[in-house]
Amino acid sequence: MATRVLVVGGGVIGLSCAWRLAEAGYEVTVVAPDPGRDGASWVAAGMLAPVTEVQFGEAPLTELLREGAALWKEFATSLEGASGHDVGYDESGTLTVALDASDRAALDQLLAYQHSLGCTAHRRTASECRALVPSLTPTLRGGIEVPGDHHVDNRALLGALVQACRGRGVRFVPLTVEAVASGGSRRSGEPGRSGEPGPSVDLSDGSRLDSDHVLLAAGTGTPHIGGLDAAGLPEIRPVKGHILRLGPAEGRSGPPLLPRTVRALVHGRSIYLVPRPDRTLVVGATMEERGTDLGVQAGAVHELLCDARSVVPGIDELELLESGTGLRPATPDNTPVVGWTALAGVAVASGHFRNGMLLAPLTAASVVDLFGAGFGAGAALGADAGADVRTAPGDE
Amino acid sequence: MATRVLVVGGGVIGLSCAWRLAEAGYEVTVVAPDPGRDGASWVAAGMLAPVTEVQFGEAPLTELLREGAALWKEFATSLEGASGHDVGYDESGTLTVALDASDRAALDQLLAYQHSLGCTAHRRTASECRALVPSLTPTLRGGIEVPGDHHVDNRALLGALVQACRGRGVRFVPLTVEAVASGGSRRSGEPGRSGEPGPSVDLSDGSRLDSDHVLLAAGTGTPHIGGLDAAGLPEIRPVKGHILRLGPAEGRSGPPLLPRTVRALVHGRSIYLVPRPDRTLVVGATMEERGTDLGVQAGAVHELLCDARSVVPGIDELELLESGTGLRPATPDNTPVVGWTALAGVAVASGHFRNGMLLAPLTAASVVDLFGAGFGAGAALGADAGADVRTAPGDE
Repeated sequence: MATRVLVVGGGVIGLSCAWRLAEAGYEVTVVAPDPGRDGASWVAAGMLAPVTEVQFGEAPLTELLREGAALWKEFATSLEGASGHDVGYDESGTLTVALDASDRAALDQLLAYQHSLGCTAHRRTASECRALVPSLTPTLRGGIEVPGDHHVDNRALLGALVQACRGRGVRFVPLTVEAVASGGSRRSGEPGRSGEPGPSVDLSDGSRLDSDHVLLAAGTGTPHIGGLDAAGLPEIRPVKGHILRLGPAEGRSGPPLLPRTVRALVHGRSIYLVPRPDRTLVVGATMEERGTDLGVQAGAVHELLCDARSVVPGIDELELLESGTGLRPATPDNTPVVGWTALAGVAVASGHFRNGMLLAPLTAASVVDLFGAGFGAGAALGADAGADVRTAPGDE
Repeated sequence: MATRVLVVGGGVIGLSCAWRLAEAGYEVTVVAPDPGRDGASWVAAGMLAPVTEVQFGEAPLTELLREGAALWKEFATSLEGASGHDVGYDESGTLTVALDASDRAALDQLLAYQHSLGCTAHRRTASECRALVPSLTPTLRGGIEVPGDHHVDNRALLGALVQACRGRGVRFVPLTVEAVASGGSRRSGEPGRSGEPGPSVDLSDGSRLDSDHVLLAAGTGTPHIGGLDAAGLPEIRPVKGHILRLGPAEGRSGPPLLPRTVRALVHGRSIYLVPRPDRTLVVGATMEERGTDLGVQAGAVHELLCDARSVVPGIDELELLESGTGLRPATPDNTPVVGWTALAGVAVASGHFRNGMLLAPLTAASVVDLFGAGFGAGAALGADAGADVRTAPGDE
């Protein structure tokens, strides 16, 4: 009988893990209210941008992100084969532009840091930028081209993951997990082979599901699951982001407004504009610490529109198709937490913050390794990169 | 047997006429895809503002608007009694403010014109404005208070009208009218008593409805109804407007951001912010000639947010609940057309442009008079005010 895995969460991390685990021979159940439409993944921009996302002082995270990016092409190809769906994986690269002299200075500092980490990134003049993306404002002050930072269509990806999961026999339970319980007295060993009961979850309809392994991949919902007091999880807090979706008016033809992802510093504020195959644009950037509030704030929408149109004036003529928000799961050091918890048979894959899409293939591979090695094995993700990965106290 | 009237259109004009006609003893049928939710009425701000809406060179229209406003209090009271629903009729008045010196100069010119027309309007200093509306930006340059310009909750009003219609036995047919035909050879007289067949309409499901009178009140949809080539209608063109609905974040209490309607000139651009009883705000202003395009444009949303927050900085903290557009039916001289068409038994009430809410009670009263007097009677609305009201060629 196949080992049973219960995945809590239907975002990109939960679904990627579920698919890869099912491929690896596990009997997988995903518990999520609306798989593929839940949480932050649905409103993500889909940037796969380890170099553009470089932050000063986060070199180990950058290393992890680059490792994650390296898996993407194979992951996309494999997923498209398994699901029969295009995921919109796009290798046109990323251009980051500066709007004023001070933005230019900030980008030059970032470029020097990117080079110090061995990243491929090129300084571009204003006219070089406009040759790459003709719709950019003529007033820009040059930028950085990162040919290796790509993007994926997050919604196409999520749809393909659900499809691939179904193709592998993954069962979907459209409920919420209220609590998780470890399997009796065991503190280590391989659940499902030890003869002792495995972990279980209590569902929102009052029922209970047993399993051999449980994987908590519910993003910012993870810490709200009951029974985790002794799990040894780090703090996972929500960081809100606003996103706009813009598209050409019906019937308008012509080339897309952006042939590649454009990011910008606009008088010190960051913004990104990511094109989709259907000629819509995803515009985002905001990061707000406002608890679990999911409201779309007028000020944030104004800021995004204001900055977007100052970078690409043609934005004004697009239709505002959607204004949304998502809550990204952030840990204190912005590094994801992937590994066994202190509860027997219960693992976690959360805290991916701004990099859930980028790190999904690597996380899924790590979780497959983790479950293959059994409870008590070291957490895989980030270990090589020296990132701060928490393992269960019982493992120390 | 009661005279049958078929009203085409489920916006504020169609529903107001239907209700009043039903009260007057007619047997009324309303044909509209989604009565009370159709068209421009659903996205209106609900201002009842003849004085604030004064436009240079449109003195007869202003007279008509003031006549319309005078009927509102009784209309609201009567409708609330008939429907059992509050319509959010609010007599707190309107304040128009200027953001810069040039806006102030423009408002002073407007004020002089308002006074020349005999309107009640008071010049207010910046601190007087902020005493009336404390959430206004401290940088404003004073304004005009118009205590007699009120507002109504358009959606509550539409709901109450549907309710009142039902209470009077009005029948609703949720279809579109594709064509209208007059009743045979008659060119004048009183349809329904003459013994000749009355007019009829062809519906989107292929069926036909006969009636004694037909009232075309479909706003910008009116000219798209078939069979009207010989009706003698003036051009009715769509003028697009964007509207935003903003509201306090869930759980936020405290006084409403605006205790009355605020309008503003922001570096030459007009904007209005109208409060609702549920503490949401309706923000609008745009007027665009873009045919029947209903898309929400990024540039228009940006402009509204930009201007709104420059007038009331607290806007930034509100949630953007809705971004919508509507198409206002405009005639060449901005004056509504209410009266018999050249087709026997077919009347029209359309072209209300920016003043559909304000003119609904007057229009309904005029239509009741019109039908009582029979085909061939002069059109009532605006006639006293000297407005350009078209009557049927057969009447000349």
